[in-house]
Amino acid sequence: MEKILVLGAGRSAGSLIKYLLEEGKAADWQITVADYALQLAEEKVQGSHIATAVAFNINDEAQRTALIYAHDVVVSMLPAKFHPMVAGLCLQAGKHLFTASYVSDDMRVLDEAAKKKGLLFLNECGLDPGIDHMSAMKVIDHIRKDKGLDLYAFESFTGGLLAPDPNDDNPWQYGFTWNPRNVVLAGQGTVKFIQEGKYKYIPYHRLFRRHEMIHIPGHGYFEGYANRDSLKYMDVYALHNIQTLFRGTLRRPGFTKAWDVFVQLGATDDTYEMEGVPEMTHRQFINSFLSYNPTDSVELKLAHYLGLDREGPEIHALQWLGLFEEEPVGLMKGTPAQVLEQILKKKWTISADRKDQIVMWHLFDYKENGKMKRIRAAMVATGESASQSAMSKTVGLPLGIAIKRFLNGEIVSRGVQIPILPEFYQPILDELQTQGFQFIEEEIELD
Amino acid sequence: MEKILVLGAGRSAGSLIKYLLEEGKAADWQITVADYALQLAEEKVQGSHIATAVAFNINDEAQRTALIYAHDVVVSMLPAKFHPMVAGLCLQAGKHLFTASYVSDDMRVLDEAAKKKGLLFLNECGLDPGIDHMSAMKVIDHIRKDKGLDLYAFESFTGGLLAPDPNDDNPWQYGFTWNPRNVVLAGQGTVKFIQEGKYKYIPYHRLFRRHEMIHIPGHGYFEGYANRDSLKYMDVYALHNIQTLFRGTLRRPGFTKAWDVFVQLGATDDTYEMEGVPEMTHRQFINSFLSYNPTDSVELKLAHYLGLDREGPEIHALQWLGLFEEEPVGLMKGTPAQVLEQILKKKWTISADRKDQIVMWHLFDYKENGKMKRIRAAMVATGESASQSAMSKTVGLPLGIAIKRFLNGEIVSRGVQIPILPEFYQPILDELQTQGFQFIEEEIELD
Repeated sequence: MEKILVLGAGRSAGSLIKYLLEEGKAADWQITVADYALQLAEEKVQGSHIATAVAFNINDEAQRTALIYAHDVVVSMLPAKFHPMVAGLCLQAGKHLFTASYVSDDMRVLDEAAKKKGLLFLNECGLDPGIDHMSAMKVIDHIRKDKGLDLYAFESFTGGLLAPDPNDDNPWQYGFTWNPRNVVLAGQGTVKFIQEGKYKYIPYHRLFRRHEMIHIPGHGYFEGYANRDSLKYMDVYALHNIQTLFRGTLRRPGFTKAWDVFVQLGATDDTYEMEGVPEMTHRQFINSFLSYNPTDSVELKLAHYLGLDREGPEIHALQWLGLFEEEPVGLMKGTPAQVLEQILKKKWTISADRKDQIVMWHLFDYKENGKMKRIRAAMVATGESASQSAMSKTVGLPLGIAIKRFLNGEIVSRGVQIPILPEFYQPILDELQTQGFQFIEEEIELD
Repeated sequence: MEKILVLGAGRSAGSLIKYLLEEGKAADWQITVADYALQLAEEKVQGSHIATAVAFNINDEAQRTALIYAHDVVVSMLPAKFHPMVAGLCLQAGKHLFTASYVSDDMRVLDEAAKKKGLLFLNECGLDPGIDHMSAMKVIDHIRKDKGLDLYAFESFTGGLLAPDPNDDNPWQYGFTWNPRNVVLAGQGTVKFIQEGKYKYIPYHRLFRRHEMIHIPGHGYFEGYANRDSLKYMDVYALHNIQTLFRGTLRRPGFTKAWDVFVQLGATDDTYEMEGVPEMTHRQFINSFLSYNPTDSVELKLAHYLGLDREGPEIHALQWLGLFEEEPVGLMKGTPAQVLEQILKKKWTISADRKDQIVMWHLFDYKENGKMKRIRAAMVATGESASQSAMSKTVGLPLGIAIKRFLNGEIVSRGVQIPILPEFYQPILDELQTQGFQFIEEEIELD
């Protein structure tokens, strides 16, 4: 009997736990689901006889030590900042660790020690990072290993979106399907990528104006804006001779220009506390970034300041969010980013029956027999509901599948890993496909 | 005999040391000028029999301790980061300290201990901060104490500029009269001020587009853009009921829109190292912030990206700086800000005979007998040469005068101070006036 400990039973852990409960019956697993909120853990366990829900406080050293020592495999769905602590304990106790988070420097340094103890610390095994790595490496390995050719260009975009709904008048076609704070802060820092052999940099305040349009057959157009540091994928995927390397985020058309209003105003700034937040209204929040002018309206000042049409789609998008209302923000203090998040939550919090949609798109260019060829691969996954969301499934299933394959003895890698080796991506992508998460690939010849 | 130690003999210390040498003869002072570069210290001492030049390494604990213990008064013209260390030693040794730098938190906490030991730690006693405090507080005290009235609005602008020169074709009318790195990084962070009772915020990427024009009779028009945090002057000057409080920086017309090109590109970013700096040319530097496009020129891409006229003054200003040349940058590594500084130094380093100009301008509004009144005060000071610059004099003379008055026993304040009390500003402003640094005040009644 294998004992699996799941730390964290929040929204993104739902599909993972469901998968483990289903697979665990035949495989004779014993699963413990631990969360600060016992009720959350109990909801996820659903009375399964192979699972136990426990109330858990990560800051309780005795409890976290005892729990980790009592299991064979640990899956951490906790906020990423806790992973080094959990990993340290796993190392000490000799337990394997699985996460969907980026490998931090604190995690990376444990590689050798984990290898020495024969432990696997698998990270970045969710959606993004996760499925992006696996689906990209499958094609990259095909071009490099099967064909023996070099990659000329690689672009990759992912978006966590709302599924299209004709009855929804939300002009953003966007809602909070994941952490609202991360949505507000998305894109901060400088973007770095390489295009046709030239290093390129985009500052945050220009990012949302430099999107490109991406078309996915059957799903229409999306706006893609660049992610922070694409250059690091030169190392991660060993793409050292590549001429174009670009990773980005997808939104529906119109989003980036409307969101850019907040960026231009400074409304996403998280570096200082605003004055007078307890009495502030939505309208006053916007006005605090505009010049003083006793005669013009906030709407007119905003349109004039940013060169927008007073009756155009960006002003309308802000209007739909209630940003011009004299409605109290409802916070006692906050940075601009915190105030904006609070206002956005009022309209972007999605109802329990609202379906989300995950869209992932890759482009690979390579030269074969003197001709430039392009492979495009796209996956579009639609959720069933807020609790059975596409986000939860695409984050949780890769982790669940990886754990199953690992416990079956099919994975031999040890140390700190991400799923870029065939022994990870092949079985995970295959099983995801049987669950309906499939990449549609097409190959064309460029002129 | 009083012993004065001057730490740092760089460009900004010239006028201070000259003043101390002149005043010190009659007053029987013994002056030590200490600098990492002995030659710099020797040049400043000019063979005076009351002064000694010494080679000095701030990181040599034994030397800095011995030097401070051997003097009565310490003036630190070192970079501000060393001031807490120097202040700590002064406290230990029981020595008074004078600086022209902002009071840091590390300095502020020494207030009580300095008072207990009967020591004066006078900071912010140069130009800006320094003369700005003194000239503003003189008028503020006049309105508040003499008239018993409240201030309604206070605005204050300072610029370290080049003196007008009809033979100079520099379209920026600007050069490095002070620290080039600080010029490149100027304005970073969020601007905060209050206008007509409303708190206002400007993000860095919008700062240089929101300048206002200021006219100084006899000197023409200047562009003023906001300094980082005007709100702190509510506490510093005790202006808690003020409706408008705005501090800013002056540049000559056309500067801010041309400088904004660098801000928009991200060329002043100091947070990451660029790739390929050793082989980079000026033109490639600019191109790295622009989209890839094999057919358009860098100039055209830049004009299009930022909505500028291809033949307009901003593109011309960059052209004058050589930014479109395929000339090697000449650095082995660097952030965008460091690369830009290196390029700017090639054209903005001023010749030894080039005169600089300091411009300071204040506005004070207050209500008297039901009528709103406005006082404007302006000082324009022109340097003699690069070594006898207006900057050096306006930074050094207030410090020198303060030291003289202190040693004469005319200053009774102790602890960590800035020159906002009459016992500081009155004698310093009076003596500055005899040296030709005079504020012209005018008062008008507003409609």
